[in-house]
Amino acid sequence: MTVRASGHEAGRAGAAPILVVGSVALDEISTPVGHREGVVGGTAVNFSAAASLFAPVQLVGVIGDDYPTEELDFLLRRGADLSGLEQRPGRSFRWGGLYHRDMNTRDTTFTELGVFADFHPKIPDRFRSAPLAFLGAIDPALQLEVLSQIESPVLAACDTMNYWIEGTPERLAEVIAKIDLITLNDEEAKQLSGEHNLTRAARWIQRRGPRHVVIKKGEHGAVLLTSEGFFIIPGFPLDDVVDPTGAGDAFAGGLLGYLARCGSITGAALRRAVVYGCALGSFACEAFGARRMVTLTMAEVEDRVRSFGTLTRFDVPARRVEA
Amino acid sequence: MTVRASGHEAGRAGAAPILVVGSVALDEISTPVGHREGVVGGTAVNFSAAASLFAPVQLVGVIGDDYPTEELDFLLRRGADLSGLEQRPGRSFRWGGLYHRDMNTRDTTFTELGVFADFHPKIPDRFRSAPLAFLGAIDPALQLEVLSQIESPVLAACDTMNYWIEGTPERLAEVIAKIDLITLNDEEAKQLSGEHNLTRAARWIQRRGPRHVVIKKGEHGAVLLTSEGFFIIPGFPLDDVVDPTGAGDAFAGGLLGYLARCGSITGAALRRAVVYGCALGSFACEAFGARRMVTLTMAEVEDRVRSFGTLTRFDVPARRVEA
Repeated sequence: MTVRASGHEAGRAGAAPILVVGSVALDEISTPVGHREGVVGGTAVNFSAAASLFAPVQLVGVIGDDYPTEELDFLLRRGADLSGLEQRPGRSFRWGGLYHRDMNTRDTTFTELGVFADFHPKIPDRFRSAPLAFLGAIDPALQLEVLSQIESPVLAACDTMNYWIEGTPERLAEVIAKIDLITLNDEEAKQLSGEHNLTRAARWIQRRGPRHVVIKKGEHGAVLLTSEGFFIIPGFPLDDVVDPTGAGDAFAGGLLGYLARCGSITGAALRRAVVYGCALGSFACEAFGARRMVTLTMAEVEDRVRSFGTLTRFDVPARRVEA
Repeated sequence: MTVRASGHEAGRAGAAPILVVGSVALDEISTPVGHREGVVGGTAVNFSAAASLFAPVQLVGVIGDDYPTEELDFLLRRGADLSGLEQRPGRSFRWGGLYHRDMNTRDTTFTELGVFADFHPKIPDRFRSAPLAFLGAIDPALQLEVLSQIESPVLAACDTMNYWIEGTPERLAEVIAKIDLITLNDEEAKQLSGEHNLTRAARWIQRRGPRHVVIKKGEHGAVLLTSEGFFIIPGFPLDDVVDPTGAGDAFAGGLLGYLARCGSITGAALRRAVVYGCALGSFACEAFGARRMVTLTMAEVEDRVRSFGTLTRFDVPARRVEA
């Protein structure tokens, strides 16, 4: 499956555009390393911060009049189109998170929806034909609104979360039946499927619609299920984790970004896309919010992907005669 | 480093002997799949059940007069030497475990030491020159007793557990300073080092003695640290986990077994050894106790290792000109 005319890898200029719809937030984050307030975040920002390294991003979201929009200038410099980011009177969506010492568990300290409470995504005309689309973990009703506004993309992807799995399972099932790729974390995959086993959960989800199922396991890496079967990759080992907020969105941004740049969605490309996703997710943990993404270069990304190859390589023995 | 004259891979007959010292138990196991009593288990049995596929095993342990020794006949058929398994009047070591629905957490329901309470390993003369030795997670004082009885093996390996990390840290430090390779699980590595980060924990442990540090992450795979750096591998995905008891010991058995058969302990061989360890650990989960090990063939092991290669392979892009 080809998302643009030239099937070979190219730089950002030659890559297919990616539409992303999701939250744009101001986060208050406490980790064992420190505390930060007013951190620009949310799915659409963290996804775009990663994906914009690979491809032109078209962002749709809503912010209040309190949002420090200049902090999104780095996205503009990377060719992102923020004209779908609506600014309305009122307060922006705010979220607070407190990470425990192991950095693997966190508590949500508060959620203020603000202008996000009345969010109904309006997809600008020129975004409707984007060949790749990513629907962040918003209300499945809104995800359906987006799907009804866009032309059939080559790859429609979505994320979801426990709140919608519990609260609106039927509408979520409608979304899942319509999309090509889903990303969700291991606990969510188990909750959605009712399976305690991750491979069974992935197959259960695949049978409900998405050809490609990507299960994010945080520091433990990711699992990909395609029509060709499973691919598994451990997490990239980091010596210092500063803030995991947004790592899952950066993972999705790296994944779709790579596919947009690669230009074809084969099994091998999807495997590499998951590796790029893990790489971007690991970079996201190195600083608060999307800060590491601001300075990140494609050369650093490629270096990490190569390191990943070195870290995980082993040679499989040839078939033994006496076996 | 070579553990026997021929440096190439060979069958069990040509492999170097492995000495294992550890518990020999009767387990009472409850998992969501079922309940079993009087299951032959313990580190020495579960290790040997895996390692004996690769190499001649020399087992040292103690059992009471209630032990169904005929259930260890499969080890004899695989060339294991059980003459170091002392049978004494009294009850065998018994352990009970209850696994929760996710199979990742368990409670110890009871521990009866029986004749194991007075265990002091006596290494038979002909075992003292084994080129590979594995000291199960017994009292570090006993591990030191073993080390004082054996000639310098090419590879001395040990495991340990939270009980000794908390209870006898000084003696454990003595053991760690003397051995070449340590296997322990992620929580134990963090506890031992005081580091919350796994790569830091591995380096901390390596600085205390062992050239090779292997951290077991259960369903999430394993991390290897050698002088050449890190190797990481995800867990082998299983559709059905019946009983994880002994999987960590089977992992160690596969790891040392592969090294004994391979004959040389290079960085590449250690990576492959960890893959074989993961493969054996995954088989161990497929039935209660060591039951799956009884029927397991080397052909099945090699198939799983090849599947592992297929599941984890991705091609790293060549260095990009524009990066």
